[in-house]
Amino acid sequence: MNFSINTDVLLNNLLVSQKALSTKTPAPYLQGIKLEVYQNELVLITSNSDIAIKLSIKDESLSVERTGEALIPGRVFVDFIRKLDKGSVEISVVDNNVLRIHSHNTDLSLNLQNVDDYPEINFVMNDTPIKLDSKIMKGIIRQTTFATSNIENRPILTGVNIKVEKNHLLAIATDSFRLSQKQIDIKDEFENMNVVIPGRSLDELIKVLELDLEEILIHLNHKSILFEYGNILFQSRLLEGNFPETGRLIPTDFPIIIKFKTDDLAVAIERASLLSSKDNLNSIVKLYLKPDNVVEITSNSPEIGKVIEEVYPVEKAIGTPLKIAFSSKYFLDALKTFNSENVYVKFTGEIRPFVIEGDDDPDLIQLILPVRTE
Amino acid sequence: MNFSINTDVLLNNLLVSQKALSTKTPAPYLQGIKLEVYQNELVLITSNSDIAIKLSIKDESLSVERTGEALIPGRVFVDFIRKLDKGSVEISVVDNNVLRIHSHNTDLSLNLQNVDDYPEINFVMNDTPIKLDSKIMKGIIRQTTFATSNIENRPILTGVNIKVEKNHLLAIATDSFRLSQKQIDIKDEFENMNVVIPGRSLDELIKVLELDLEEILIHLNHKSILFEYGNILFQSRLLEGNFPETGRLIPTDFPIIIKFKTDDLAVAIERASLLSSKDNLNSIVKLYLKPDNVVEITSNSPEIGKVIEEVYPVEKAIGTPLKIAFSSKYFLDALKTFNSENVYVKFTGEIRPFVIEGDDDPDLIQLILPVRTE
Repeated sequence: MNFSINTDVLLNNLLVSQKALSTKTPAPYLQGIKLEVYQNELVLITSNSDIAIKLSIKDESLSVERTGEALIPGRVFVDFIRKLDKGSVEISVVDNNVLRIHSHNTDLSLNLQNVDDYPEINFVMNDTPIKLDSKIMKGIIRQTTFATSNIENRPILTGVNIKVEKNHLLAIATDSFRLSQKQIDIKDEFENMNVVIPGRSLDELIKVLELDLEEILIHLNHKSILFEYGNILFQSRLLEGNFPETGRLIPTDFPIIIKFKTDDLAVAIERASLLSSKDNLNSIVKLYLKPDNVVEITSNSPEIGKVIEEVYPVEKAIGTPLKIAFSSKYFLDALKTFNSENVYVKFTGEIRPFVIEGDDDPDLIQLILPVRTE
Repeated sequence: MNFSINTDVLLNNLLVSQKALSTKTPAPYLQGIKLEVYQNELVLITSNSDIAIKLSIKDESLSVERTGEALIPGRVFVDFIRKLDKGSVEISVVDNNVLRIHSHNTDLSLNLQNVDDYPEINFVMNDTPIKLDSKIMKGIIRQTTFATSNIENRPILTGVNIKVEKNHLLAIATDSFRLSQKQIDIKDEFENMNVVIPGRSLDELIKVLELDLEEILIHLNHKSILFEYGNILFQSRLLEGNFPETGRLIPTDFPIIIKFKTDDLAVAIERASLLSSKDNLNSIVKLYLKPDNVVEITSNSPEIGKVIEEVYPVEKAIGTPLKIAFSSKYFLDALKTFNSENVYVKFTGEIRPFVIEGDDDPDLIQLILPVRTE
């Protein structure tokens, strides 16, 4: 194996590649990057227990003298390429088990692992992938993944449930204290799909979707899902099991509806949450819709003090006065998913789940369970 | 106590103030900020075991209705003021033991501590402070403090020794493996001074020197040193004990001198250091001045591989070929203190301390002890 390539081109691809690099693993080969060098193509493969990434590089700066493949230590290779001067880098295997990296006055030799140790990874493409606008895919991930559970006692809740029926896509995440649901209509009709993708995989996928490309293709298989994005194949395992039926959890009748300017509400809750607890994780704030249509957001810590925020709804609230308490973190997480200038907070009662919706975010629902206070 | 002030003015001063705020302390009053409100002045006082800061605010936005003083919880107060909308904030003591902060639609009540619990802090000014260009003071801190020891077994080495004799200032820091020495000439003659200032205090002081002011005044007392910078009084305790005589440690005769482009040398050592160890802290690299005047920087890890960097000196090196090994971290720390395009690395022998000096950094010496290798 012997080739040269522009250093920046290699680095930009490695930065994608390393998203699937294991740093802590009992299997040392998963800390490696598999290089496959063909006549006009360099392929980088990385994988960990959740995801696998395959990058195909066919850059004009790639010049291949000898094809071949190698398994190289990932972290040190990426760090090194990152520190190289601009220009070209030559990479070759010498003495069968040493990778030589040469650029300008720099000469690095890396001990190779046995490439035969690397597992065969099947990146399974099918003929009828689902086509999505990549901005929409990023939106789905951003608006739902945060609501997955990070506790492993109900593994299925650590994933986002994505269902496609005809030209309709539904994405749902819930940790059983809150729920995020996004619906979108897609252009064409595709085969039905109902999968649960690990939230961790989607957190990595969204970082990869940085190229200026319009489209992402989704190939579904039995145990995995493959996202095709330009020269990137990003494959994730799927979670097994049945995602809970959440449709009936979302109320449809809301006797109380308050319309807020999103920023006003966010900043009031942020300030109120400063008081409640040191880590802000379990910081409970109270919302009180007063008869005079002013909303008070309050929080109280016997040791430190109390805060009262007055927020003026954009228009007269629908419904009766109401007092409700909730996690400020959950509320702020949910608010951040909206692009809307105004949001509607919709209640069915003081101890019933409530819903946030936005003017300019059609088909996005954020649901939060209130907490009981004394 | 009852006053109002522009929120940004208060916040900018609080951000300085909080540098002396204790976050972990058995003495709760040290987590507090002492407010003193006079007719035309707001004073903020904070202190911890190393430093004390007193800020005098005489802003035109300050409007005092009732003078007084209070001891307020520091962290939550700063966090809250940071989150306030722009404009004015009213601050008053109500019911004797509650601080009320009111701005726009926000109302915060904070339980006060007893202001009498706060220790009397004497900010001691004298009539003949040393006057320094504040840029020079920042330079001294940046170029020396990093070389202090962070191990407490020789407490005196955790500080920077600053000596003033006539119009001559000498700053020295050493952790016994490396030494940094900066000399400067000051305009006027001042009283002699020989103090050791905790490195931690100087790390905070440099963050405070962000105002656009030319001058800093240094007031020296028996047990403390007070820096006066605009409306800021920054006082630090001094370390007791004798700072070691380091003059004789610095060689003066250098049979081997190599002149490098600073950036070339830095990047070569950075790349070489990637290989040696995971934390890079004890990463040892070797420098080899070859007979052909090329310098090789090498590093070797039996498990991972090896790197060879060739660096071409700016001009023909003085002296014989040489091999020497050192901590890449110490070398890079030292290199970063130079503003010079070129540096001279000066050797007396393979196991003797060596020195780095710069073209455009007069009177700055960085000394490093080499390490023995196999």
